[in-house]
Amino acid sequence: MAKEKDKKLVEAITSMDEDFAQWYTDIVKKAELIDYSSVKGCMIIRPYGYAIWENIQRDLDARFKETGHENVYMPLFIPESLLRKEAEHVEGFAPEVAWVTHGGSEELAERLCVRPTSETLFCEHFSKIVQSYKDLPKLYNQWCSVVRWEKTTRPFLRTTEFLWQEGHTIHATAEEAEEETIRMLNIYAKHCEEVLAIPVIKGRKTEKEKFAGARATYTIESLMHDGKALQTGTSHFFGDNFAKAFNIRYLDKNGQLQYVYETSWGVTTRLIGAVIMVHGDDNGLKLPPRIAPIQVVIVPIAQHKEGVLDKANELKERLSKVVRVKLDDSDKMPGWKFAEYEMKGVPVRLEVGPKDIEKNQVVLVRRDTMEKISVSMDNLEQEVLRLLDDIHNNMLEMARKNRDEHTYVATNMEEFKDIVENKPGFIKAMWCGDRECEDKIKEETGATSRCIPFEQETLSDKCVCCGKIAKHMVYWGRAY
Amino acid sequence: MAKEKDKKLVEAITSMDEDFAQWYTDIVKKAELIDYSSVKGCMIIRPYGYAIWENIQRDLDARFKETGHENVYMPLFIPESLLRKEAEHVEGFAPEVAWVTHGGSEELAERLCVRPTSETLFCEHFSKIVQSYKDLPKLYNQWCSVVRWEKTTRPFLRTTEFLWQEGHTIHATAEEAEEETIRMLNIYAKHCEEVLAIPVIKGRKTEKEKFAGARATYTIESLMHDGKALQTGTSHFFGDNFAKAFNIRYLDKNGQLQYVYETSWGVTTRLIGAVIMVHGDDNGLKLPPRIAPIQVVIVPIAQHKEGVLDKANELKERLSKVVRVKLDDSDKMPGWKFAEYEMKGVPVRLEVGPKDIEKNQVVLVRRDTMEKISVSMDNLEQEVLRLLDDIHNNMLEMARKNRDEHTYVATNMEEFKDIVENKPGFIKAMWCGDRECEDKIKEETGATSRCIPFEQETLSDKCVCCGKIAKHMVYWGRAY
Repeated sequence: MAKEKDKKLVEAITSMDEDFAQWYTDIVKKAELIDYSSVKGCMIIRPYGYAIWENIQRDLDARFKETGHENVYMPLFIPESLLRKEAEHVEGFAPEVAWVTHGGSEELAERLCVRPTSETLFCEHFSKIVQSYKDLPKLYNQWCSVVRWEKTTRPFLRTTEFLWQEGHTIHATAEEAEEETIRMLNIYAKHCEEVLAIPVIKGRKTEKEKFAGARATYTIESLMHDGKALQTGTSHFFGDNFAKAFNIRYLDKNGQLQYVYETSWGVTTRLIGAVIMVHGDDNGLKLPPRIAPIQVVIVPIAQHKEGVLDKANELKERLSKVVRVKLDDSDKMPGWKFAEYEMKGVPVRLEVGPKDIEKNQVVLVRRDTMEKISVSMDNLEQEVLRLLDDIHNNMLEMARKNRDEHTYVATNMEEFKDIVENKPGFIKAMWCGDRECEDKIKEETGATSRCIPFEQETLSDKCVCCGKIAKHMVYWGRAY
Repeated sequence: MAKEKDKKLVEAITSMDEDFAQWYTDIVKKAELIDYSSVKGCMIIRPYGYAIWENIQRDLDARFKETGHENVYMPLFIPESLLRKEAEHVEGFAPEVAWVTHGGSEELAERLCVRPTSETLFCEHFSKIVQSYKDLPKLYNQWCSVVRWEKTTRPFLRTTEFLWQEGHTIHATAEEAEEETIRMLNIYAKHCEEVLAIPVIKGRKTEKEKFAGARATYTIESLMHDGKALQTGTSHFFGDNFAKAFNIRYLDKNGQLQYVYETSWGVTTRLIGAVIMVHGDDNGLKLPPRIAPIQVVIVPIAQHKEGVLDKANELKERLSKVVRVKLDDSDKMPGWKFAEYEMKGVPVRLEVGPKDIEKNQVVLVRRDTMEKISVSMDNLEQEVLRLLDDIHNNMLEMARKNRDEHTYVATNMEEFKDIVENKPGFIKAMWCGDRECEDKIKEETGATSRCIPFEQETLSDKCVCCGKIAKHMVYWGRAY
C-alpha cells in the first residue's frame, strides 16, 4: 500500500462503494486508458489502453488462425440498398447508423452508412466468390472499428465508435455452421478465463435478445463488481437467412445448387471495461498479467546511492528477456511511484535498494493481494514467471468466488424483486419460454434475461413469473 | 515455367507491354489480392492480400516501437469546426472528405467528416495532455483506415478508403522534430529495401508538392515497371504551425511557455501496389520473401504413389518451423499448381516425387529467376533460408538495376520532352527553384517534381526550363 504522504494520488479515486460509475470514470481517466474528444460519444484510446487492446488482439488472433480463420478487410461504408437486403437486419440497425450524404462538395446519389457491422458486405462478397462445395467453408475475420449512434455512452462499455473483430463464416451444412458458432463461443470463453482471468457463463440468448437477423445468438456473460451483468462476447448462427437474401449458393457434389449456412461472432474493446470492473479496487486497476502492458515495474529505493541504479538496470535487462518490464528511475519519490503503478494495475512491483543488494535479494509486491515477498536475485526470472501465473490464477479464482457469491436463486417474483433491489448479482430462475413473462420481468424489476445457460439446473418446475410449466433455467440480471 | 497444357491460367493475364494498367488489374484480381465491392472506389482486401499487409505491419510496427513510439486510437470522425482550425490544412482536405450529416434519423447539429488524416484530432489531444517539458516528446502512431473522396481509383494505388499508419509526434525543439522527420523517412526507406526489396530515392518535396499545412515534406520515391514514379511514403515537419493553431504549449525548464514542434508520417496499402509494379512479370506476382504469406509451396509429383504424400507432409512439418510453408495436396495437376503459385508470386516452389525420394533430394524452383536446383533433404532448412535471402537480394538488385537503367538526365526542355515521350523513367534535371518552371514542366510534359534528393549532383548550372541559375537537382517523372 502507498505510504501516507503519497496517498493524494490514490485518494483522488472515488471509492467503488460510494459511486461505482464515478469510480469507473476515475480509473479510465487516471490510469490513462482513454481521453475524451470533441467528437461526442467517441473516445481516444491512449497508449496504455491501446497496449492492453494489442495484447488482447494478439491472443485472439492467434486462436482464430489456429482454427483456420483468415483476416480480410471490407469497406467502411455500406450503400443503403445493400443494408436493406435482409429485412430483420436493417430493422435492427438502421435506427442507429451514421449516414454519409456528401463526398467533398457533391451530394451522393445514394446514402452510405458507416458500418455498424458487416454481414451485408461479407454476404455480397461471398455471393461472388463461392461456386462449388470445394470453395467451402470460408472462415473470415476482420479487425476494425464500427459505429452505432448511441444516446448515452461510457468509455469501453458503450461508445458511438468502437474497436472490435467480426468473424464471418459460411459452410455447406447447418450442422457445420452450428459447430462453428459454438467453437468460437468456446474460444471467447477460453480467452476470458485464460487471459483476462474472467469467468463467464455460456448460453443462448432468448428470441427477444438475439441479434437482428440471426436464428440463434450465443453469448458469454460475466458479472461486474457492482453486481451488474456484462454481455462479453456473442456468436450468431444465421441458418440460411442471409444466404437467401443475398443468393449465396454453391453446387454440391451431386451438381445441385444449395444455399450456404452462415455464422458471425464478435468481441469488442468492451473486454477492457470488463477487466476494469471485474478486477479493479479502490486503489485503481488490477490488470491480469497476460494482458498487462507492464508486467513488472522496477522501483529503485534510495536510487541516488552507489550501485542501486546499476543493479536496477541489470535486473531490467535480465527480466526483459522473459516479461514486459519497466524501470522507473525518474526522480519521483518511491511512495509516489508505488501509488502510480498500483493505480495502473501493474501486476508485480519489484523494489531494490542498498539493503536488498547487500542480501542479494529483491522485494516483490503483488498487486492482487498486496502481499510482499523477498526472493533471491539468483533465480529471479523463474520466481517472477511463477508469481505472474499465480496472480493470474488467484485473480480468476477471486472473480469466480465473487460471482458465485453474487448469484442467487429466485422461485417467485417476490424473491426476484427482493434480490434485484437488495442483492445485486446474477439471478437464476425458471422460465416458461414466453415473451410476455420476459417483458414483465424487465418491466417490474429492470432485469433482463442474460442467457439460457448450457449447464441447465432444475430449480423448480414452474416459471418464476407466471407459474406455468418451466422450460428453461435462465440467468437474469441488470446489465450494461 | 508451367507446362504447355496448363498455360491457360497464365495466358489469362494481359502482358505488361501490351497494356500495363490491364496487367495490373489482372494481377490484383487473379492473384486474389482484392475484390471490388458495391461501394464505389472502395476495395475488399482478400485473405492473400491482407496477409501481405499484416507482414508489412508487423515489420513496421516493430521498427516504430524500437524507436520509442506508442500506438493509440483516435476517433474516426472529425467535427467540421475542428478540421477548420488550421487554414492550409482544411483547404487541402475539405474538397475530398466524406461528410456524415445524420445519426440514425436525426440531423446532426454539426457535420462530421470521416478522417482523411488525423492531425487535428492529435493536436486537440496534445493540447490537453501536455503541460511541462517533462511530458515531451510524445511519439504516437495509429493503424487505421482513412477516407478521401477520389474521382478515379485503382486498387491499392488510389482508393476512396485505404489502410495506413499515421505517426504524430511533438517535441520541445524544432531540431528534435526535424530529426524525427528524417528518422522516420529513413525507417521507411530501410523497410522498403530490407523487406519489400524496393530501392527508393530519398528527398524533399517542393513547396508545390508538400502536404497541406506542413513546413517541409520528405518523401521516398520508387520507380515502377512502366517507368512511372510512385510516392511510396512521406514524412512531414510542421514546425509550430499546428501548435499555434491548437495552442499546444509547455512550460520549459525556465518556466516559460513554449509552443511544441510537430511531425507526422505515413505509409499506406499503396506499398502493396509498389510491390506488384516493381517486381511482377507476365506470369503474375513476384513477392519479396519477407512479406510473402507463403514463402515455400510444396507440390508433390505423382502424389498417388506410395510414400510421396507422407514425405511431403514430413518436409512441410520440418519447414514450418522456419518458414511460412504450404503443402498443396489437392487433386489438381502439378502443372496447374505451378502456374497458380507463379501467379501468386510464391518465392520458392518445392517439388518432391518418387525419383527425388529415391535420391534423398528435392527440387527447388525460385520465382524470381525460375532457376531450378536439386538439394539434399538433409539440410533442407538451411538451403531454403539461404535461398530466400538470395531471392530477396536478387530482387532488390534487379529493381535497382531497372531503376538506374531508366533514370535519365535532361539539360534542356527538348531533351526533357524526348525522354518523357520515348523513355519512361526518372528524369534528373536542374531547377531554378521557381514555381513557374515547375508548373510549365508539368503543363508541357505531364511530369511532376518527385523530390529534391538528399544526394545532390551538379548536372549543369542552369535550370532545365528557364536557363537561369539552378538551385537544385530534382527528380522528375510521370507519377501515380
